[in-house]
Amino acid sequence: SGWRVWRDEDVRKTLPKPTGNTHKGTFGTNLLIAGSDEMPGSAALAAIGALRFGTGKLTIATTKHASTIIGPLAPEATFSFDVKSAGIADQYLSVAIGPGLNPDDELETFIKDLLDQPVAIILDAGALSQRKYNDRQAPVIITPHPGEFSRLTGKRSVEIQKNRISFASQYAVENGLMVVLKGKYTVIAYPDGTGVINLTGNRALSKGGTGDTLTGMLLASIGTHQSIKAAVANAVFIHGACANDWVKENGDQALSAHDFDRLLPKICRHYSS
Amino acid sequence: SGWRVWRDEDVRKTLPKPTGNTHKGTFGTNLLIAGSDEMPGSAALAAIGALRFGTGKLTIATTKHASTIIGPLAPEATFSFDVKSAGIADQYLSVAIGPGLNPDDELETFIKDLLDQPVAIILDAGALSQRKYNDRQAPVIITPHPGEFSRLTGKRSVEIQKNRISFASQYAVENGLMVVLKGKYTVIAYPDGTGVINLTGNRALSKGGTGDTLTGMLLASIGTHQSIKAAVANAVFIHGACANDWVKENGDQALSAHDFDRLLPKICRHYSS
Amino acid sequence: SGWRVWRDEDVRKTLPKPTGNTHKGTFGTNLLIAGSDEMPGSAALAAIGALRFGTGKLTIATTKHASTIIGPLAPEATFSFDVKSAGIADQYLSVAIGPGLNPDDELETFIKDLLDQPVAIILDAGALSQRKYNDRQAPVIITPHPGEFSRLTGKRSVEIQKNRISFASQYAVENGLMVVLKGKYTVIAYPDGTGVINLTGNRALSKGGTGDTLTGMLLASIGTHQSIKAAVANAVFIHGACANDWVKENGDQALSAHDFDRLLPKICRHYSS
Amino acid sequence: SGWRVWRDEDVRKTLPKPTGNTHKGTFGTNLLIAGSDEMPGSAALAAIGALRFGTGKLTIATTKHASTIIGPLAPEATFSFDVKSAGIADQYLSVAIGPGLNPDDELETFIKDLLDQPVAIILDAGALSQRKYNDRQAPVIITPHPGEFSRLTGKRSVEIQKNRISFASQYAVENGLMVVLKGKYTVIAYPDGTGVINLTGNRALSKGGTGDTLTGMLLASIGTHQSIKAAVANAVFIHGACANDWVKENGDQALSAHDFDRLLPKICRHYSS
Ligand SMILES: Nc1ncnc2c1ncn2[C@@H]1O[C@H](COP(=O)(O)O)[C@@H](O)[C@H]1O
Ligand SMILES: Nc1ncnc2c1ncn2[C@@H]1O[C@H](COP(=O)(O)O)[C@@H](O)[C@H]1O
Ligand SMILES: Nc1ncnc2c1ncn2[C@@H]1O[C@H](COP(=O)(O)O)[C@@H](O)[C@H]1O
Ligand SMILES: Nc1ncnc2c1ncn2[C@@H]1O[C@H](COP(=O)(O)O)[C@@H](O)[C@H]1O
Ligand SMILES: [Mg+2]
Ligand SMILES: [Mg+2]
Ligand SMILES: [Mg+2]
Ligand SMILES: [Mg+2]
Repeated sequence: SGWRVWRDEDVRKTLPKPTGNTHKGTFGTNLLIAGSDEMPGSAALAAIGALRFGTGKLTIATTKHASTIIGPLAPEATFSFDVKSAGIADQYLSVAIGPGLNPDDELETFIKDLLDQPVAIILDAGALSQRKYNDRQAPVIITPHPGEFSRLTGKRSVEIQKNRISFASQYAVENGLMVVLKGKYTVIAYPDGTGVINLTGNRALSKGGTGDTLTGMLLASIGTHQSIKAAVANAVFIHGACANDWVKENGDQALSAHDFDRLLPKICRHYSS
Repeated sequence: SGWRVWRDEDVRKTLPKPTGNTHKGTFGTNLLIAGSDEMPGSAALAAIGALRFGTGKLTIATTKHASTIIGPLAPEATFSFDVKSAGIADQYLSVAIGPGLNPDDELETFIKDLLDQPVAIILDAGALSQRKYNDRQAPVIITPHPGEFSRLTGKRSVEIQKNRISFASQYAVENGLMVVLKGKYTVIAYPDGTGVINLTGNRALSKGGTGDTLTGMLLASIGTHQSIKAAVANAVFIHGACANDWVKENGDQALSAHDFDRLLPKICRHYSS
Repeated sequence: SGWRVWRDEDVRKTLPKPTGNTHKGTFGTNLLIAGSDEMPGSAALAAIGALRFGTGKLTIATTKHASTIIGPLAPEATFSFDVKSAGIADQYLSVAIGPGLNPDDELETFIKDLLDQPVAIILDAGALSQRKYNDRQAPVIITPHPGEFSRLTGKRSVEIQKNRISFASQYAVENGLMVVLKGKYTVIAYPDGTGVINLTGNRALSKGGTGDTLTGMLLASIGTHQSIKAAVANAVFIHGACANDWVKENGDQALSAHDFDRLLPKICRHYSS
Repeated sequence: SGWRVWRDEDVRKTLPKPTGNTHKGTFGTNLLIAGSDEMPGSAALAAIGALRFGTGKLTIATTKHASTIIGPLAPEATFSFDVKSAGIADQYLSVAIGPGLNPDDELETFIKDLLDQPVAIILDAGALSQRKYNDRQAPVIITPHPGEFSRLTGKRSVEIQKNRISFASQYAVENGLMVVLKGKYTVIAYPDGTGVINLTGNRALSKGGTGDTLTGMLLASIGTHQSIKAAVANAVFIHGACANDWVKENGDQALSAHDFDRLLPKICRHYSS
């Protein structure tokens, strides 16, 4: 049926192993549009995900206030306090938008403009809404949890949870995008009707902020992998693998998303070698 | 007499071991009202306690200035800079209020309004005052140290220290709430006249800020336990157990409350497995 | 001659080993007046020293801007943005003043007022100036490095370095205070003409900020020791011992003063047991 | 030809091993002009490099907003929010300028003024532009990556990469300065036509921010070494050696420049003993 479990050996095979004369440009200049005065940390957590999963250069479009909270946690990032949609595709390889943003008309217009540009886009959290995805060449990835997917599809969460694969796949095919339907056994549906299921992760991830980190990892991933399908699946897999490593020595109620700052380096190494 | 020591095996038996299809909503959306321009860290320390002890989602009502200090330490939390009491019970499972707040009429009015709502409430520090607790169904937990309990009861600290169990129990029964009378051998009095005594902890905890962390742990705890009695006792027990772990390798004068960020994951694991 | 080296066994004998029913009040409520917009970190480094060396409660009088930098590093402290000298002795056990402050007339007046109050005072950095110390009962401790001592005494640094013990002792006796003349082999001169020499420490300490941490340690120390002489000597000794521990595994050019946050807990333990 | 590889034994031989009566002044008072509201972290990363590689005292000229992000990461530094070029040579041993700065006329004028003063200058990032270096005695070090060197020389990056040694050397000799041409196998060209090649480092460094840390290390280095040639080569070598240490246990996509805060102490020790 074109669906299968994404496994250890898939990750090892597809994780990029760059050699030769690399420089930061090799690994993509990415834009993260995230964080607000009242939700500043989400941008920091996404930045941690991006920086620890291989982004070359990261710009964060956010508020000045939020930058005082993001900066100490992700000093490698630079900020844009007045981002315009125009020209984003010229400056950035990929864009992730949504963590810590409130959905409103202004944001919707911004996203519409962005979708008209030839740039890979990841839509999460506040950027998830019911909208039309007109024909685009550049990839779109959406990362809803069941509650958010319910808002997108009009279906009830319980319904969704019973039909995770079929609903995700249907939405992906119909809209020509990738759906990362999060939660226990995250389902990744590709626009061609195929997809993979992820088995890593555990209840330690059931806490605010972990999804933001995944969004950052996805942003980095699609800039460094050859295959975008593998890029998405590997980010989800490694994200869960970090949580599996965490619970070996730590209580599963005790994970904070910023622990990925320490977990990712080791787990990346594990699957790279 | 319905009083006993809360022991290792009690903790192991009652600490939640969630299985199945958890998501962040499973572990409660909690509100922490804490921190001010001059006492910002108290909110950060409470947030650390909440996040490391299993809260699902945490909102912190505080000042914008305080958020610049809380944010880097607890990026998983979101902020509310203009919290209103109205509707809190609809949005949050439990509320903790007091660390880093100055008691004044405005705060008192806010708490009165809150007490009229069907939501679990933890009152600490600046939120501790002499007041009437009209008949409520939802639990109230107060967490005074002997000095604060003296202010509440009008009794002198030395008197209180000589009669910790009876005074705490009397206040709990009369007011229909739970009293966590802190200090060496913390006493936990339930409104039904029963109670438990905690033996963990040591003088390393005798430093500003450790109580704030306990308040955050209590907030998380009552959202994840089946029994609220056990929820309170376990938070107190684990809090002290962290300090006991600390002194194995570190001077007892040297603990800072933010060390709970590192201590809790390991100690939670110890009592969960 | 009443002068001797302060040794391992002196530290072990005199470091406080509190037992019984301690609470944060047992270990002193201390005031640190330090830090400015342009020198905010010095207050954070002093706060780390105080909190890790046993202070019970710490208030930092500083600027609001500085608090955004101090707060994430020392969330256990509270702030005062508009400190007045009046009444300080009623609220605080001891006061340290100077790190990150610019000497000016306003500061001088403040210190004069403070010196009229019955409270232990530590004067460092910007608070070191030529002034008269009228008869006071409460202790005064000054912590100049040779350059600062030169400014106080009008003697040249090279002169001072040749006569560290005699100059420090003379100044201590004449002014009725304790002189901590810093640098390699710190000299501690008591007002009664006796004194001790410290042998711990190394060139890793030769970097901006380490002196600020010592000031914080002294603040904590005099609130927890029985003998103020030992309190001062132990702070200096342990400060240097941390640096000696550091160089076992780290380059001596690489110490940052905020490393004391990790070094102090272990070294305190070493000398307490 | 006066060119050779800079090796382990060169580092061990030339890394400073100060003894005797050191104090912070022994290791230089340095000025870092870096960071802006939108690029605050670059200054923090440079400060980490300077503080961990042995600077005695560090002042950072930056914006007040940027200081809220730099401060928590480098509390040992002090700030100047309104730096003037006049008198810098009197106050500082060396100056590094550029990380996180936007090149504009004002900056260019500032640098021109600075170049007229007898003080060692490191130019990086925003401070790199085509300009004349009139006869100076005090050293100038420029640290371009190939893209920046292309801007300086008008040559295309591909051209540069094919002729790294000859182009760097030519520019160094013609302008009477040192060129640190960064990237895989960094080339260090001295103004006398000689130079060294560095073999340490790996693709983990190919991420925004690592160059800023190197700039800070260079600032510290020229204040502590006897030979400025060795000072520059050692900073580059140790910088790369940190990355080589990193990849032993961590994924090469996962390094963040602020990891140098932990890597440098150990690696400095390795080459000092
Ligand atoms: N019980 C669970 N098992 C595995 N993964 C989970 C679980 N709960 C949450 N997650 C993951 O944690 C993240 C939560 O994202 P969000 O809902 O946006 O905060 C997603 O990557 C989820 O797949
Ligand atoms: N000597 C001690 N032994 C055990 N626990 C203590 C001791 N001193 C303080 N604590 C605990 O530390 C916390 C202090 O809270 P607070 O007084 O609000 O700062 C409470 O949980 C106390 O029970
Ligand atoms: N070479 C050294 N050996 C031992 N201690 C030192 C040395 N250099 C500096 N220190 C200590 O480091 C601190 C520097 O303080 P300050 O001069 O105020 O920054 C003081 O405690 C000095 O005694
Ligand atoms: N592939 C690589 N191998 C070795 N060093 C590298 C590599 N990529 C980047 N670097 C170093 O990382 C730093 C990047 O500086 P910048 O380009 O200013 O961010 C320089 O020190 C480069 O020499
Ligand atoms: Mg989410
Ligand atoms: Mg308290
Ligand atoms: Mg000093
Ligand atoms: Mg650069």
